[in-house]
Order: sequence, then structure tokens, then C-alpha cells
Amino acid sequence: MIYNLHDILALEKNYRANLINSLGGFKSLVLIGTKHTDGTPNLATFSSLFHLGANPALCGIIIRPSNPNRNTLDNILTTQQYTLNHVNPTFFKKAHQCSAKYAAGVNEFESVGLTEEYLEGIFPPFVKESNIKFACELVQKIDITLNDTTLMIGKIVKVIVPDECCNLDGFIDLEKAQTVTCSGLDSYHTTHKLARLSYAKVDREVREI
Amino acid sequence: MIYNLHDILALEKNYRANLINSLGGFKSLVLIGTKHTDGTPNLATFSSLFHLGANPALCGIIIRPSNPNRNTLDNILTTQQYTLNHVNPTFFKKAHQCSAKYAAGVNEFESVGLTEEYLEGIFPPFVKESNIKFACELVQKIDITLNDTTLMIGKIVKVIVPDECCNLDGFIDLEKAQTVTCSGLDSYHTTHKLARLSYAKVDREVREI
Repeated sequence: MIYNLHDILALEKNYRANLINSLGGFKSLVLIGTKHTDGTPNLATFSSLFHLGANPALCGIIIRPSNPNRNTLDNILTTQQYTLNHVNPTFFKKAHQCSAKYAAGVNEFESVGLTEEYLEGIFPPFVKESNIKFACELVQKIDITLNDTTLMIGKIVKVIVPDECCNLDGFIDLEKAQTVTCSGLDSYHTTHKLARLSYAKVDREVREI
Repeated sequence: MIYNLHDILALEKNYRANLINSLGGFKSLVLIGTKHTDGTPNLATFSSLFHLGANPALCGIIIRPSNPNRNTLDNILTTQQYTLNHVNPTFFKKAHQCSAKYAAGVNEFESVGLTEEYLEGIFPPFVKESNIKFACELVQKIDITLNDTTLMIGKIVKVIVPDECCNLDGFIDLEKAQTVTCSGLDSYHTTHKLARLSYAKVDREVREI
């Protein structure tokens, strides 16, 4: 299939949503934990996480104007903190359920059956069932007026990784940690490693490491 | 392992790069094709692609200040167009080799052994070997001064997907297309589908579709 611009514009809305959400390839999948100042936790599914830099350690997420993203945005703006929790095969259906449009004031942890975990120095909850998780402090909010979305840039301030998934060079073995990836709006996948490859240089072939 | 902020700041540079690049989970992996106005093609590896919206169809990439990203940035700014090409297991080592710091004026397609493919209306080359590919026109450039990176927002203007990977609802079967995902700076993975899940609603359980 070839779609040109006029084809894309003419697509039925849900078809286009499925197509364009699939097109970028496999995506990072995290549950973002936040907490209202009234004490209500919030947990929402995100697939727009991207790496922004290692020094300082920064990452970005895109927040859409609609619920449930809206509660996440409001909580981050008032508390400045959020947690990012990888999804494992044992609870990917509960993670997907967190994308439902729960009303403000509803605790998604209770609604979907996941467990809040509180760690020193971080106000919002982590997901106890998650093998790899980290926390961010908001450092910059950029409004993308093109489509009314918001880029939130976070500084990584706490990282939790199982010991057996930490390689000696800092690399995290996500496969050993059973991190799930997603595609489109609703498809979930485990992975199978092809190889790690040596640092690429112009004058030599890459090799498996 | 638990890393707090002062631990992260104290890490050896390469260790931190591996850790923080792994932390976000599995990533979209694309080869971005651009072309200089003098006719020299450029092909560079990116793992920062993210979905920004389906209507209008928008996606974002992060460009770092250093080469080989610099050539990609310059070419996009002068020609306004770029192609995004999924990576398949048959050529993931060649894709990784595109991350080497080739000098401006070098054609990475020739250097790594991939084939330029030109399609109607798009100035820069696609990767012929790639099963899924699309083209963008630059619509907004946002400088992220925090760490001297650049967010390029593109409007999707052409999409190429094998017929057998197009589901009736618009979903693209990336696994059938053998799209590869990556983790960290240098690890490549195929996937195994757990399930597609029904649209999540607050008042019912998700089911496999």
C-alpha cells in the first residue's frame, strides 16, 4: 500500500489513528505515576517516551489534551515529580486498562489492581509490580501549538533496576527484565535479542559484543 | 540497584550513557534519509522517533548537535524533507554502521551497502531494503536549549507498507514486516506478540482482539 498526503487526509478517523500510531515502529511503554496534592494517585499509560540526553540525564514525554493524560499533566505541574514504570507480561492487560478515561479522583492503581510503592524522596507512587522504574523532576514544559500537545522534559533523579539486569558497562538487559514494548494503539510484544554491536566507526566493520 | 541523583551525576561517562539510554525501554529504530542540494544522500540511525498525533499526522525526532546528526539537520533545513525507514533483521548491522561519524559529502548508502530508492514527490532517498517507510515534511523546529538538541516535527506525507502487513482497521503488523526494535545504544531485537487488546473503558475488562 502507498498512501500519499491526500490519501492520508481522506482516511476514516479510526483507521488513520491505527495506521499513524503503528507507523513509527515499536515504542517505549511506561506507566506514569503521579499524585494529586489531595493524596489521590494517578496512573496512566504512555507510549511517547523518548531519550533526550544522558548528561544531564533527560527524557521527554508527550501529553495529549484529553483525559486521562490531563490528570497526569495537572499533577506534574503542581508537584513537579512523576514516576515511569516499565510494563511486564504479567500485568500488560492492567497497564492497557490504565488508558481508560477514569475521572479525576479515581485511583487507577485500585481500579486495575496494581500496587502503589513509595520510595525515599519521591512524592508520587511507583508501580510495585514493575521490574524497572525511575523518577523524574520536571525541568521544562514546551507547548506544541500545532496539535495542542505538551512536551514535558524531565530530569532523571532516581533509577531502580534489578541487579541481575545490570551489565558491567551500564547497559540494562531489558529482555532479562521482561520489559514489554508496544505498537499501534493496542498491541503488546516481548522481544528476542539479535545482538549487541560494537561502537560504529567509519574505518571498520561492526562486530557482535 | 538503586541510583539516586548524586549517584547518576557521579557515574563514569560511558557507563551513564549506556544506563540512561537503556532506561526508557525498547525504542523505535529508523534510518533517516536526507539529501544535500548538491545531490549527496545521507543516511543516519535514529532511535528517538515518537508519535505526536494522527490528525494531522505528525511525528517528532530529536537531533543531537554532533555528527552524523548534523548532516541530517542541515539537509532537512534546506530541503524540508526526510524519509524514515524501518530496519529489518537482514540489514540491522548495516543500519548500526550508519551511526558512525562519516564526514559530510560521504554517501552512507554506498559506504554501508544499502540501496537508494526514489519515489514520486520526495527529494531524499528511501532505503530500498526497508519493508515499511514513510516521508515527512518539516513543519516545526524547536531548539531545546537545556542540552543543545533540536526537536524536528514532521508532517507525514507518504507511507509505504507491504499489503500483507495492513490490517483491515489500519493497524500495521510490524512483526509480519520484521521491524526491528532497539535498546540502549547498540542492542537490536525482534519481537513476539503477546496480544492486541480492545479499547479500554472504565466499566469493562479489556479482552484480546
